Amino acid sequence: MTQTQSDLEIQGQSAFPASKKVYATGSRDDIRVPFREVTLTPTSGRFGEEQNEPLKVYDTSGPYSDDGAKLHLGQGLPALRRAWILERGDVEEYSASPVVYRGQDKGRAVTQMHYAKQGIVTPEMEYIAIREGVEPDFVREEIARGRAIIPSNINHPESEPMIIGRNFQVKINANIGNSAITSSIREEVEKMLWATRWGADTVMDLSTGSDIHTTREWIVRNSPVPIGTVPIYQALEKVDGNPEELTWEIYRDTIIEQCEQGVDYFTIHAGVLLRYVPLTANRITGIVSRGGSIMAGWCLAHHQENFLYTHFEELCEIMRVYDVSFSLGDGLRPGSIADANDEAQFGELQTLGELTQFAWEHDVQVMIEGPGHVPMHKIKENMDRQLEVCHEAPFYTLGPLTTDIAPGYDHITSGIGAAMIGMYGTAMLCYVTPKEHLGLPNKQDVKEGVITYKIAAHAADVAKGHPRAADWDDALSKARFEFRWEDQFNLALDPETARAYHDETLPATGAKVAHFCSMCGPKFCAMKITQDVREYARNRGLNPDNAIAVGMEEKSEEFRQAGSRIYQKS
Amino acid sequence: MTQTQSDLEIQGQSAFPASKKVYATGSRDDIRVPFREVTLTPTSGRFGEEQNEPLKVYDTSGPYSDDGAKLHLGQGLPALRRAWILERGDVEEYSASPVVYRGQDKGRAVTQMHYAKQGIVTPEMEYIAIREGVEPDFVREEIARGRAIIPSNINHPESEPMIIGRNFQVKINANIGNSAITSSIREEVEKMLWATRWGADTVMDLSTGSDIHTTREWIVRNSPVPIGTVPIYQALEKVDGNPEELTWEIYRDTIIEQCEQGVDYFTIHAGVLLRYVPLTANRITGIVSRGGSIMAGWCLAHHQENFLYTHFEELCEIMRVYDVSFSLGDGLRPGSIADANDEAQFGELQTLGELTQFAWEHDVQVMIEGPGHVPMHKIKENMDRQLEVCHEAPFYTLGPLTTDIAPGYDHITSGIGAAMIGMYGTAMLCYVTPKEHLGLPNKQDVKEGVITYKIAAHAADVAKGHPRAADWDDALSKARFEFRWEDQFNLALDPETARAYHDETLPATGAKVAHFCSMCGPKFCAMKITQDVREYARNRGLNPDNAIAVGMEEKSEEFRQAGSRIYQKS
Repeated sequence: MTQTQSDLEIQGQSAFPASKKVYATGSRDDIRVPFREVTLTPTSGRFGEEQNEPLKVYDTSGPYSDDGAKLHLGQGLPALRRAWILERGDVEEYSASPVVYRGQDKGRAVTQMHYAKQGIVTPEMEYIAIREGVEPDFVREEIARGRAIIPSNINHPESEPMIIGRNFQVKINANIGNSAITSSIREEVEKMLWATRWGADTVMDLSTGSDIHTTREWIVRNSPVPIGTVPIYQALEKVDGNPEELTWEIYRDTIIEQCEQGVDYFTIHAGVLLRYVPLTANRITGIVSRGGSIMAGWCLAHHQENFLYTHFEELCEIMRVYDVSFSLGDGLRPGSIADANDEAQFGELQTLGELTQFAWEHDVQVMIEGPGHVPMHKIKENMDRQLEVCHEAPFYTLGPLTTDIAPGYDHITSGIGAAMIGMYGTAMLCYVTPKEHLGLPNKQDVKEGVITYKIAAHAADVAKGHPRAADWDDALSKARFEFRWEDQFNLALDPETARAYHDETLPATGAKVAHFCSMCGPKFCAMKITQDVREYARNRGLNPDNAIAVGMEEKSEEFRQAGSRIYQKS
Repeated sequence: MTQTQSDLEIQGQSAFPASKKVYATGSRDDIRVPFREVTLTPTSGRFGEEQNEPLKVYDTSGPYSDDGAKLHLGQGLPALRRAWILERGDVEEYSASPVVYRGQDKGRAVTQMHYAKQGIVTPEMEYIAIREGVEPDFVREEIARGRAIIPSNINHPESEPMIIGRNFQVKINANIGNSAITSSIREEVEKMLWATRWGADTVMDLSTGSDIHTTREWIVRNSPVPIGTVPIYQALEKVDGNPEELTWEIYRDTIIEQCEQGVDYFTIHAGVLLRYVPLTANRITGIVSRGGSIMAGWCLAHHQENFLYTHFEELCEIMRVYDVSFSLGDGLRPGSIADANDEAQFGELQTLGELTQFAWEHDVQVMIEGPGHVPMHKIKENMDRQLEVCHEAPFYTLGPLTTDIAPGYDHITSGIGAAMIGMYGTAMLCYVTPKEHLGLPNKQDVKEGVITYKIAAHAADVAKGHPRAADWDDALSKARFEFRWEDQFNLALDPETARAYHDETLPATGAKVAHFCSMCGPKFCAMKITQDVREYARNRGLNPDNAIAVGMEEKSEEFRQAGSRIYQKS
């Protein structure tokens, strides 16, 4: 990449208010795990005097949010994992510029699953253990078992290790990518940075137009999170958009190119079998997955079985020498709630389960993609069946949308389904933006989608009882109740919006220290009255925790009786 | 109300695109049930030739959306139900200007529940049967059983009958109301019209400032949907905001004033018992309900039982002569997920169950208010327990919010919980806007809240298998798949936004007839490829419905075997 364009200087992103980037160091100095630490003000006055510990939250924004970060998109991020990869002594450099690595000896697996099965806790695993607040060996066990994956192509050493599995925090993916119609490379790189700033755990580059390779190069080199792609899109470009002309050789060369470039996971629609295609003929929305329809088109044109299925073993042999993970695509996912949970969808899922075991035998990491459009009462069945037929490989779902009637609001129709399926066990949620079905997301749409999905993922973490999840809610609620307005804003998923909405109604700075909310006004406020209740109790020497309780019990006993009398009357 | 202000002329609201207001007539000419009918274009070309029947959807917008409607806020809406009320011959007019009615003979019940128990199917019930697509006698049974309510104060004859019960479409409520700090009467009336235009089934006027009475008068006279209030807010104004000075007499006079004015349901916090108050002392967010905190404050100040509880029988005797429904308030609802499902909340719920049976004995209709803030894994318990202890009286919940960390997005954090609890059986969902916890909703916030809650309610209807619900989804999905862009926009919950988002990416009119979506571009589109697949099949004389299936089966058999071999190899 050229390093001359000065428009590629990037000052790093303005930190969140009252937040600073901190690092927790592991067993070795080069294991430095990022967190965003939110400083809180002390509790005081009627609420008593008390310090409020700063809150550490999971941070996906990468070095861009470091104090005084000064980066250059033309140079890419530092190669954080390079040393760990090389010191394992199992990779060879076979291209100098750009430097490209692959496993030594034809077909040697250099995957995290391979190490995990051998009982090795890699630096990546330790990093993740610190990031998630669990034991390193637990991470190793989950990887070895196939119940979680660490997308970590050895040619993407810039990425900060993260894990996708249902016994860890629920993750979210943001899709970017230019299409034939619009968008520039610079725009896409900025969308990637923007998405990770707001919390995207992985980013998929779905570019379909020209410059696919270059766009991806810029994104990979500058991305602190794993990058996923759908290689068939680039393969299709090579045959000028005509599915019938696709061949295994063209596809194979495409994925090798992307393995060398550093893509961390591939969506591969190897489960779209010839025999499943006609099962979609009577659907309301047929086949809506791009990759799925391409492969279906190919199968019908040649009246042959899907070449991704017949060449699956070669796929494994290629991907294992770079540690690229499978994201087995649901090419037959429903495109409307009417088509949910049908024979075509579940038939393909069954095949994905077979392929999962096959990939595991080659030590290749696997996750499974899921729908799509599913009414609420059919969501749990999707999760239960996936766990069963795919042997607990991590589930990675798009939404699902719970109704089709709200184009323009599909981040919400799908956020509902995403939160639910996340609670049931989905490991990663692919975001949907307000532009779904209508157009290409701009920066604001990307933010709206990411925030909505952070909400869904966090709500699922809380419902699943993740040890750290509810701490965030409790810290914010305590701040809210104590009228620590600044803390409430600073603890919000989106501090800027929270503050802006408050200022719209109560612009005065005074309002931010006022002991009332804009909903009620100074003279009358629920929370204020509750504090009066507590104070009232205190003034009378009653300790709210018990003394009142006793006093109340006596008193209320009379009223229980009075009350009873009243009812007897009628 | 003055009728001179010309700024009160209202031209009616611009109809939705391709939509017209239609009425279905019942057994008598004055039973005219409104629907919005969306006209669809025919299917053609590669999809075959086919007419698409227009879709009728539930309409809450009232006469304002009638063709060529010309109304005047100063005159209020026509008294649609007046004749039905008078011909029952059980009410007396006891004030001429404004005309006010109440049940004859002290304490005579004129409630829909009273008639239902006597086996009478009122015009209101027949109207609702047509509106919901069920049998009139089913409506009567549900009302008699207390499983549903028809909020219909005899002094609000302008309102179009609607029902709240879990065996009918899930309803949504929008809160409006000015506060001490901001907003004008005109603004509030417009918010009411705006909310019903987008689909609010009822509106609560939560005004707390001065001019409460006048604001409410304008809203009730012009509202086509039932109006709810929290009378304690007005009572509190009368004692200058000091809860300790509240008395039963002041409260009683307040509700009589509102009964005469035409309010259809009252939120009454009669379950906040003295003995429950201290149970909130150790909560993170104490008592967050305004009404709940007022009554808690009163109880502690006087060290007496809640006067709404001790005077509950008088409340029933007043409300039954106007047919005002109880919305028994959850004054101790949790204000944070940490406080959900605790002893205070469930203790109060138990008491609300007792009061429900008591009100039913007086033929007063009842619904029960619910939380609030509840993590997803605790939502079902709320619904199940409410059905059990409140004898299946309709549940009316605020959200619930499923996480506390996203102020500025609480329409979404709560939309998730609302959809879920709706699926479990909640009859009406009280909306939450993006300004929740931060400020007062403006018009755009009201729309955002209403649309989000229509999504939640509709997703719940689909999940519950409501006969008409999925038809809407299917009509839109079929239009989407057939690239009938205009139909897709016109069928959207928010046609304007759907169209605007599409135009952002593809402004050209041509794009609206293009056989591709902006996500992929002309050369490459999933849906297009699917049609090619079908066409391909047709061209070869294969009928997608079976011929292919057969052909495929033979072919795929070979590949199943090939596939098996592959697996055996490893």
